[in-house]
Amino acid sequence: MTRLTTEQNAEIQALRSTPAATLRPISAGLEEVLHTAFPVLDHGLIRVVDYMGDDSAIVQAARVSYGRGTKRVQEDRGLINYLMRHYHTTPFEMAEIKFHVKLPIFVARQWIRHRTASVNEYSARYSVLDNEFYIPEPQHLAAQSSSNRQGRGAVLEGDEAAEVLSLLRRDAEKAYSGYTTMLNEQESPDHEEARAGLARELARMNLSLNFYTQWYWKTNLHNLMNFLRLRADKHAQYEIRAYADIMLDIMAAWVPFAHAAFLEHRMDAVQLSGSAVKLVRRMIAGEVVTQVDSGLSPREWQELSVALGL
Amino acid sequence: MTRLTTEQNAEIQALRSTPAATLRPISAGLEEVLHTAFPVLDHGLIRVVDYMGDDSAIVQAARVSYGRGTKRVQEDRGLINYLMRHYHTTPFEMAEIKFHVKLPIFVARQWIRHRTASVNEYSARYSVLDNEFYIPEPQHLAAQSSSNRQGRGAVLEGDEAAEVLSLLRRDAEKAYSGYTTMLNEQESPDHEEARAGLARELARMNLSLNFYTQWYWKTNLHNLMNFLRLRADKHAQYEIRAYADIMLDIMAAWVPFAHAAFLEHRMDAVQLSGSAVKLVRRMIAGEVVTQVDSGLSPREWQELSVALGL
Amino acid sequence: MTRLTTEQNAEIQALRSTPAATLRPISAGLEEVLHTAFPVLDHGLIRVVDYMGDDSAIVQAARVSYGRGTKRVQEDRGLINYLMRHYHTTPFEMAEIKFHVKLPIFVARQWIRHRTASVNEYSARYSVLDNEFYIPEPQHLAAQSSSNRQGRGAVLEGDEAAEVLSLLRRDAEKAYSGYTTMLNEQESPDHEEARAGLARELARMNLSLNFYTQWYWKTNLHNLMNFLRLRADKHAQYEIRAYADIMLDIMAAWVPFAHAAFLEHRMDAVQLSGSAVKLVRRMIAGEVVTQVDSGLSPREWQELSVALGL
Amino acid sequence: MTRLTTEQNAEIQALRSTPAATLRPISAGLEEVLHTAFPVLDHGLIRVVDYMGDDSAIVQAARVSYGRGTKRVQEDRGLINYLMRHYHTTPFEMAEIKFHVKLPIFVARQWIRHRTASVNEYSARYSVLDNEFYIPEPQHLAAQSSSNRQGRGAVLEGDEAAEVLSLLRRDAEKAYSGYTTMLNEQESPDHEEARAGLARELARMNLSLNFYTQWYWKTNLHNLMNFLRLRADKHAQYEIRAYADIMLDIMAAWVPFAHAAFLEHRMDAVQLSGSAVKLVRRMIAGEVVTQVDSGLSPREWQELSVALGL
Repeated sequence: MTRLTTEQNAEIQALRSTPAATLRPISAGLEEVLHTAFPVLDHGLIRVVDYMGDDSAIVQAARVSYGRGTKRVQEDRGLINYLMRHYHTTPFEMAEIKFHVKLPIFVARQWIRHRTASVNEYSARYSVLDNEFYIPEPQHLAAQSSSNRQGRGAVLEGDEAAEVLSLLRRDAEKAYSGYTTMLNEQESPDHEEARAGLARELARMNLSLNFYTQWYWKTNLHNLMNFLRLRADKHAQYEIRAYADIMLDIMAAWVPFAHAAFLEHRMDAVQLSGSAVKLVRRMIAGEVVTQVDSGLSPREWQELSVALGL
Repeated sequence: MTRLTTEQNAEIQALRSTPAATLRPISAGLEEVLHTAFPVLDHGLIRVVDYMGDDSAIVQAARVSYGRGTKRVQEDRGLINYLMRHYHTTPFEMAEIKFHVKLPIFVARQWIRHRTASVNEYSARYSVLDNEFYIPEPQHLAAQSSSNRQGRGAVLEGDEAAEVLSLLRRDAEKAYSGYTTMLNEQESPDHEEARAGLARELARMNLSLNFYTQWYWKTNLHNLMNFLRLRADKHAQYEIRAYADIMLDIMAAWVPFAHAAFLEHRMDAVQLSGSAVKLVRRMIAGEVVTQVDSGLSPREWQELSVALGL
Repeated sequence: MTRLTTEQNAEIQALRSTPAATLRPISAGLEEVLHTAFPVLDHGLIRVVDYMGDDSAIVQAARVSYGRGTKRVQEDRGLINYLMRHYHTTPFEMAEIKFHVKLPIFVARQWIRHRTASVNEYSARYSVLDNEFYIPEPQHLAAQSSSNRQGRGAVLEGDEAAEVLSLLRRDAEKAYSGYTTMLNEQESPDHEEARAGLARELARMNLSLNFYTQWYWKTNLHNLMNFLRLRADKHAQYEIRAYADIMLDIMAAWVPFAHAAFLEHRMDAVQLSGSAVKLVRRMIAGEVVTQVDSGLSPREWQELSVALGL
Repeated sequence: MTRLTTEQNAEIQALRSTPAATLRPISAGLEEVLHTAFPVLDHGLIRVVDYMGDDSAIVQAARVSYGRGTKRVQEDRGLINYLMRHYHTTPFEMAEIKFHVKLPIFVARQWIRHRTASVNEYSARYSVLDNEFYIPEPQHLAAQSSSNRQGRGAVLEGDEAAEVLSLLRRDAEKAYSGYTTMLNEQESPDHEEARAGLARELARMNLSLNFYTQWYWKTNLHNLMNFLRLRADKHAQYEIRAYADIMLDIMAAWVPFAHAAFLEHRMDAVQLSGSAVKLVRRMIAGEVVTQVDSGLSPREWQELSVALGL
């Protein structure tokens, strides 16, 4: 694992080897992976740096609503399933998690659209960005989909793939070279005394969107699930999904009951529109229905067919 | 301490006597008081049930902005002071705290106006509220201020005070009696088989605003300070200030550097308007200024005089 | 319509009779009912006092994503349906609405849990509340449900109903009488010179939760739909649903395409869990399934049966 | 004005020439400039596309708090000043504004950190970005400040300036050329039938941070002021301040009373810490104070000296 500096690795080692005593609830599963950096893409990483609460925090918050006489009536797993199924979302806000993420800027631009979170990002106004940029692996070098304006089609092959990779690399290197030339930092081996050096906040604009940035990102479990539902979905762009998939595993370690309920009632769930409900009733009653007499538009009919495996 | 049931006290005892090992940062000061119920008003309480982060979480988040070459340049205390002074508020979002609060409904109605928080409240749709209501102590029984429409004037005395206390108590008891009568709960000693009992969600409307409710309330340090700035202020209603004052003490135990900076740059700070800045310059230059030639309205002049002890 | 003072009615009349010219988009349907007060419950009301945007604002925001070459490809109605179906929620934030609402305090307490909104409420710290409280109509006087802890059962009848109504009225009148006695306002016919009068912020605690308050409440269409999905639902408490039902009609006048899509893809929609999807596939394939071999818990099976009319 | 396409200019012309009748309050000042595109930087623009409310909306919301007996006690201008001075912020949420903005991506990255807003951005997953990038004017080509890590120093001159400008331009053109080559769009004059073309969501990563994007951005007046306080401040990066300065002018046209109060109590205001208050008192009393006996750190002393013109 070479995505972190020697100092950072030493710090993680130190953090992982010095447990402290706490009176707070702990999540044994999450303690196992706390601070550990999981590699993502070619230079990225994600790691949990802190958390608060576990499955029992959800249950505790839900039970305050039920008050005397109802404690322990339902067991925790069932209660969490019930809350998830019925969109009783506030108890899921009672657990909180904080990640350290290293990610390409174009991924960061998608990620930040999730507003209900706290963020502190590495600032290229203050500091100099490293020479690290994302180059897709060949199997992720997809063509534009011809049927879906936001989708990917077949994987590029042969010369075209090679040229794209070489072009991406060449332009990123060029951009970084221009960046350091303009900065003309004292520490740079190419530093020229005669030049003042452009302000960092300006020089950064020469970098391309595949350069890596870093941030701390903190959110509660409810909003984490909103993030995962969109970003771990198969329609999400592969590069952000690579992060979301790991976060989904982390969620499984952290809050296993909530994770199972989330898969069952969100990730694997299908929503039927009012018209689709009527249609499904007819089909269950044995009627053979086609798009034409379904009352659905061709597109909705096609989506429903896929969802129900018709 | 009789504000909690025997079961609740036993639970707190158990929680406080079973430390667990964690790899997370801890706040030694807050661990000291974790779970402990602090009494507030006549039947209320507040206690911390969980937290995440400490002063170092603020510093860590701030330093990600400074990146390589700037670590440890400023020491933590100074950095936190700097952040507070310059309203760099996002690092303060990186620490989180969760309270269990028992409070009168009219206090809950003020409290809930702080929207950036997570809340789970005891539900009177599901459960029956206890017969607990707030009666002010005589020294808090203030008259309406004649000068300030939202303020309190002198403390009521003698017969008037006694009558107010007796009236408040009488009406609350009456309200609770009506509540239980309408509910006609099976468990009630006065249960009448012949009556069905009114739905809880309806019966509760007979209770008055001084009845106690309970909730879990979770927020980050930035929003906690927004709450405290308003509610620990001397213009806040006494009853909510009684909670805020204890939360301010809890904040001191949790994040001592942030607490000191908060007092210095928020609670004890004075904001000068553009006009007031010009005025203060003239006064420092030795000029004797009166309201008439101050350029301020009489009210602003009076507020500034109080703030600067003129 | 006597829910408003003569002055308020005159003001509404004036507002409705003085159109102004604007270059903004307008919603013809909403202009029809702007400012008009709709009665709710016995003393409540709801009226739109301002708005921004209409169906075209949603479309405009969605189309910025598609950029050149895609304008007008899909017609507005279909695009709004697509956005709703796929939870592309941000374009719905582009329309905004502001209501003036008069409502019982226990309803206000449910309402305020929707945090993503702006609120200014009549303050009982500054002002004296009117002697107006909610008394249910006999057909809404429901017993506690025995099967559902948060639900209503059959309507109370005969003596029990009469006693509940009389008790509610008696206690509210008592509470208001205590309130005015403690306040001892100068304007009161019973004002006693010898008494100072209790501070308003204290006296209000004697009022019960069925007293009416008022506020301005402003939110965007996305959050309005979140509100309506919960509060116009048949599981919502009747008293808040009475407001939500009218707001749903107002939404139909304001943004007819979004309203139709909202009914189809939210209010009338059914969500199938991952397990339920598999089950529905089996049933469509002609298999006769019972709860025992359904893989669902009895409760989920029962909910699904109701939803699909099995 | 050539920042907009002919179609866009025609659309603006059409919008500006077809007033409609509304019963809503209007802001005469804002109607004057509604839809008009103000140029910013070399290719950017900002224009108001919709709004809701004006100064009277703030006043209306504030007055609901005061209720009967207090109407018209204070005139609007004074009331707005009072609200601003005392941080009674909720009434300012009652006015709303929506902008269409064209801006470089690195500016968009700062802007989006203001979370309490609604955004719809041009999507480079769906569409192809135009060949438009930001090149600073020579007078904004500043060196890195040596005293302030996030600041700009003196303007670059002579050969260094010329080389920076040429490098920025060369790299941006290179990046765009790589972008279109990889895309290999059918409409492109250089389209090659033999190549599939890289997915848009991937190709965009080759563009640098000075390329322009566009969005709709909607927020309320309270959050707009939070934005302006930071971004129209002299410490903000010049490129975002160029937008904020125009938005401040737009605010003056929209809500003139709130704008004046905002300058007086926010932009031109100075906050004194608890220690600084004591110091100012001593200075007003005639004492000559130096940093050493001020009780302030050198940095705070220096900041206070600047603020008070000592």
